Amino acid sequence: MTYCLGLQVDAGIVFAADTRTNAGVDYVTSYRKIHTFRPADDRVFVLLSAGNLATTRELIDQIGRDIEQAPGSPNGASLLSASYLFEAAEYVGRVSRQIQERHEPALSRSGVSGETSIILGGQIQGRPPGLLLVYPQGNYIAASPETPYLQIGETKYGKPILDRLADTRHSLSQAATLAMVSLEATVRSNVTVGTPLDFALYRRDSLALPESIRMEQETPYYRSASEFWQTGIVDMFSRLQPFPSQQQPGPQQGQ
Amino acid sequence: MTYCLGLQVDAGIVFAADTRTNAGVDYVTSYRKIHTFRPADDRVFVLLSAGNLATTRELIDQIGRDIEQAPGSPNGASLLSASYLFEAAEYVGRVSRQIQERHEPALSRSGVSGETSIILGGQIQGRPPGLLLVYPQGNYIAASPETPYLQIGETKYGKPILDRLADTRHSLSQAATLAMVSLEATVRSNVTVGTPLDFALYRRDSLALPESIRMEQETPYYRSASEFWQTGIVDMFSRLQPFPSQQQPGPQQGQ
Repeated sequence: MTYCLGLQVDAGIVFAADTRTNAGVDYVTSYRKIHTFRPADDRVFVLLSAGNLATTRELIDQIGRDIEQAPGSPNGASLLSASYLFEAAEYVGRVSRQIQERHEPALSRSGVSGETSIILGGQIQGRPPGLLLVYPQGNYIAASPETPYLQIGETKYGKPILDRLADTRHSLSQAATLAMVSLEATVRSNVTVGTPLDFALYRRDSLALPESIRMEQETPYYRSASEFWQTGIVDMFSRLQPFPSQQQPGPQQGQ
Repeated sequence: MTYCLGLQVDAGIVFAADTRTNAGVDYVTSYRKIHTFRPADDRVFVLLSAGNLATTRELIDQIGRDIEQAPGSPNGASLLSASYLFEAAEYVGRVSRQIQERHEPALSRSGVSGETSIILGGQIQGRPPGLLLVYPQGNYIAASPETPYLQIGETKYGKPILDRLADTRHSLSQAATLAMVSLEATVRSNVTVGTPLDFALYRRDSLALPESIRMEQETPYYRSASEFWQTGIVDMFSRLQPFPSQQQPGPQQGQ
């Protein structure tokens, strides 16, 4: 599986993804799931992908080719031709669906799904930054101030911490920290999501390539933040009021 | 949906469940999902159910009838005839499968699944207490010292906190507190899981009915524990080291 997260704050957008890919538990490998495009100075796009790895590969390759061959792109559009971020999402959704449809007969005979979900974020000059989720069917939804994050893949383990903490007033650095905590919880609970973790931090209105950071299990910051969080949770748990039952509270509780 | 959790510690077993049931989002109601049987002084059983509500209802009713009519039970066995807890699981699995099979033709025509998953725990005199998960197919698995909990229904949101904290050395009261934290995280993140929450605390070797506790959203302990946890998480997050990026850390961070 995969866990990808986009988190939009006033200061910009944080993209985060694990790198684990598996075709059955006996073929587990590591792939980069964050793809960055800056086809011109006035626009930057970041794509996160979850789903069929071949569909994603072909999609990323066609997006690159459509940029190179613009304005005569084989798909009749490209990330260069979008005037709004949602037009880029429509384009990505259309290309994704075409790829899935072309392979569907062969894949369904093998009982394999060719579906892929995409998180697309970025900015086009003169417009606000945006964060969208493109479904395998080609339609899309957007992050909003009420729900400033979008997730694809193995999303549930890392959702409670986002529901507790996500806040558009966070700095970009704080949003990245929160994304890391959400991914770390998922890595702990699900073996199909694993390190290294990739982060891309896009600063609002910079129109620059996002800052890219990779964290391994042994990266000092990742390791110390994980330990800090785990120790803190254990400590908080020990300080919770005893459960209102007739049972004896434990030795470590109710101090 | 539903979230049910069984958590076994050296001191006994905690059972916990939400009460929300939905047949589509426009028919959301509240049902008790913890069912307790103490058919004789030498045995006690607790069942948690997730899945088709009608299958569960019929299963619970048949288990009750089989106890009343033992030893001539219509299903040829009952919770009274089990000498081991796993025999009770086999019996429950068999009755569950029979019910599902009888309704399957009609249900599948309506595109409805009749499947139900059961967590079965308890103790028979002279044997250790046990905690088992009975699949819709009738087979079962057991909790173990390495993984002392079993979950059914909407399991993923509440799993990270169990992976961080579950410990068989916890007291029964601590285990109940942990179960509550796991359920609370799920209630926050998934609207199909909701209060009131039911808890049943079985003390090892008591062979007595478990202590039963219900918590509403407004129950003072639940409310204060929720707030304590939320405040603690926010505080911990503010004390995490700043993310190792070139971005400015936020005003509330890196103190």
